[in-house]
Amino acid sequence: MEIILTATVMGLGMHHGSWRYRDGDAFDYVDPDYYAHIARTAEAGALHAIFLADTLDVSEERFARPNLGALDPAVTLAVMAAHTERIGLVGTSSTTFNEPFNLARRFASLDHMSRGRAGWNAVTTFVPAVAGNFGGTPLPAHDQRYARAREFLDVVIGLWESWEAGATVGDKATGTFVDAARVHALDHVGEHFSVRGPSTLPRSRQGRPVIFQAGASESGRDLAAQYADVVFTAQNTIEAATAFRTDVRRRAVGHGRPADALKIVPGLLPVVGSTTAEAQARKEELDELRGVGPELEKLALRVGVPVEALELDEPLPVDLIRANDGFRGSHGFRDAAVELATRRNLTVRELLYANGGGHQQVVGTPEEIADTIETWVEAGAVDGFNLMIDAFPSGLEDVVEHVVPLLRKRCLFHNEYAGSTLRTNLGLPPLP
Amino acid sequence: MEIILTATVMGLGMHHGSWRYRDGDAFDYVDPDYYAHIARTAEAGALHAIFLADTLDVSEERFARPNLGALDPAVTLAVMAAHTERIGLVGTSSTTFNEPFNLARRFASLDHMSRGRAGWNAVTTFVPAVAGNFGGTPLPAHDQRYARAREFLDVVIGLWESWEAGATVGDKATGTFVDAARVHALDHVGEHFSVRGPSTLPRSRQGRPVIFQAGASESGRDLAAQYADVVFTAQNTIEAATAFRTDVRRRAVGHGRPADALKIVPGLLPVVGSTTAEAQARKEELDELRGVGPELEKLALRVGVPVEALELDEPLPVDLIRANDGFRGSHGFRDAAVELATRRNLTVRELLYANGGGHQQVVGTPEEIADTIETWVEAGAVDGFNLMIDAFPSGLEDVVEHVVPLLRKRCLFHNEYAGSTLRTNLGLPPLP
Repeated sequence: MEIILTATVMGLGMHHGSWRYRDGDAFDYVDPDYYAHIARTAEAGALHAIFLADTLDVSEERFARPNLGALDPAVTLAVMAAHTERIGLVGTSSTTFNEPFNLARRFASLDHMSRGRAGWNAVTTFVPAVAGNFGGTPLPAHDQRYARAREFLDVVIGLWESWEAGATVGDKATGTFVDAARVHALDHVGEHFSVRGPSTLPRSRQGRPVIFQAGASESGRDLAAQYADVVFTAQNTIEAATAFRTDVRRRAVGHGRPADALKIVPGLLPVVGSTTAEAQARKEELDELRGVGPELEKLALRVGVPVEALELDEPLPVDLIRANDGFRGSHGFRDAAVELATRRNLTVRELLYANGGGHQQVVGTPEEIADTIETWVEAGAVDGFNLMIDAFPSGLEDVVEHVVPLLRKRCLFHNEYAGSTLRTNLGLPPLP
Repeated sequence: MEIILTATVMGLGMHHGSWRYRDGDAFDYVDPDYYAHIARTAEAGALHAIFLADTLDVSEERFARPNLGALDPAVTLAVMAAHTERIGLVGTSSTTFNEPFNLARRFASLDHMSRGRAGWNAVTTFVPAVAGNFGGTPLPAHDQRYARAREFLDVVIGLWESWEAGATVGDKATGTFVDAARVHALDHVGEHFSVRGPSTLPRSRQGRPVIFQAGASESGRDLAAQYADVVFTAQNTIEAATAFRTDVRRRAVGHGRPADALKIVPGLLPVVGSTTAEAQARKEELDELRGVGPELEKLALRVGVPVEALELDEPLPVDLIRANDGFRGSHGFRDAAVELATRRNLTVRELLYANGGGHQQVVGTPEEIADTIETWVEAGAVDGFNLMIDAFPSGLEDVVEHVVPLLRKRCLFHNEYAGSTLRTNLGLPPLP
């Protein structure tokens, strides 16, 4: 089985020590050449897609963790599109803080400008402070966000599909530009949105952008099962990942979809060294450059307790975490952190070092990383991995130069792109 | 005096016959290579900027006029940024149908991804049908739109300036990433918006994107005088242009700004031929391929009367136009059309052919076009022109290859870019 590999670009690296560890300026993450190099490197390894996170606020970051997804993802991905030919370009964007017409047009534009390589990672946004930049009312509760997200996805997909494939006539002799009978108004009137449509843009080469989704809650899983092509998830164990994949695929079938129309891609943070000791040294240096203060604040936010409730050399206060009925954050990140800490009996400090930005972390040689990937794949736990790169560009170069060739030898990864669109390259069924 | 020249890209050309006239596919306007070629051509001529319009609706277009600004301007400009080094990249975006935090981040991202070459053309949107894609309530009245626009600009500029120049420390040795004392929350609470800030992004190389504005009404002129760096306007005569420039510069002084901090750039549609007859033949062929039906609908929309009120071989119904108290469209386009029709005593049909997409039109040799430009410049009527290209790429290639060299010989146009940012190249004063 050949798997999907994507690479997440979050500032200068997923590890918050990356800006001090890597060569290059601390503000390279706003330089276009930085993104051009990343895109070309990932495409040289035939990775399926670049995956950009989205940061709509820096107040909670307090600037101690400069791994910011600070740029508009669609603008950044458009630059990467211009420097590449085949790799997919997936941007995160919030259903809570956008208008569906604008978002649909933005990602449809990226899809055209990349000739069918765009993807949208639909999120509802779980960082409370973001709301302060959009009207000042509190972040809506989880269920409210998901109700809006569902309607938002209906509108966006409706707009993307408002031009039939045969609508683009372009007959210069007769002067028929479009077959207007094949371009359909949406006339959506719902609880949250009223959108007439149609889209200003024809269908793209892949029909419409690929939809990524990352919710782990009940509502999140159901949303993914109904709408998503790819589910990005945080899973620490093969057992949990298998259970998650089985559940989401079952839900997809419940929505009348083939189970394999939905690809399950957990995060994986590899820290690569030519020996295990070298990998561990890289990890230790990154950790030392980072410190624990800002990490502790991030963990507190993720598990939904005040930072004062976390003691570095004590276990995670699991009872307190479970008692938080009003939790508005990411269930996926919270549950994965609790699972990892309790299963391995970790102190808070140990959890901070063991936790790869909320995702499974493997510190080792290319062989050891390939072994982990192979084990998970053979167990049927995943359709691939979204690689959290610790520090750019070296972390990505290590993957492309050393891990990808091993995966190819083991027949776990394609030698080249299957086609020219992201939908084709991910092995997704064609659109109806 | 050296003038500013920008080029507007609107689909396949400003002339609605362009898609049938030009070589190439009718849907080239969603192809990235099309934009890459335009950007490189314009940069080869050292044009100051590419200027993208914004179309948020196609229902009123009825697909008969495929000169659509159908793509998201910022995404398209990001692709053009990746193919160029010096040319400015100006995108239109609506203050009525965006959130200021998202728009500020999008254009700041374009500014970083182009290393300081971005501009934002702030519009309030005058096409009523657009409202149907954003909630279904009617387009707000002119004054309401401008009240929102004013607050919107305050927020966007506030976000763009929320990081002081010295905030980006990036000291790896000490671990100081940002001087947090130099990054300021906005804490804006106003009638339309509540935005905490700060921006997620540091200042760009030019400080912040250049602001273009295009309002001709009282509110529009005053908004331009307060906030804009460049005013794009529709003017048919030297006298009207001079009066407009004098008025807006006077208003700028009233806002405590130097008069020459504001550059006045009317639209100009050149139709170029190596002889006058050749230019006229190009124009006639374009007109014939276009027909008058869709043009008539567009004109009706622009002057604010039902299409049935326009008779092709009668004069424009000026009294009816002036009697429309509830007019919500662009005052600039309406007034320019009325002025042109009455001054030259044109029938509606003649107006359709004389009107260059709402702008002054010159059909002739490169010398004749350079003569017009020189006359307007010598009269002190303008700081430059925003060139409406009739059909891409030939209309742009003609300008770059034949008109620009003549302007250089006459010392009316720079031989090369003055610097690397749009602000520098436009001769704007540095930001405080």
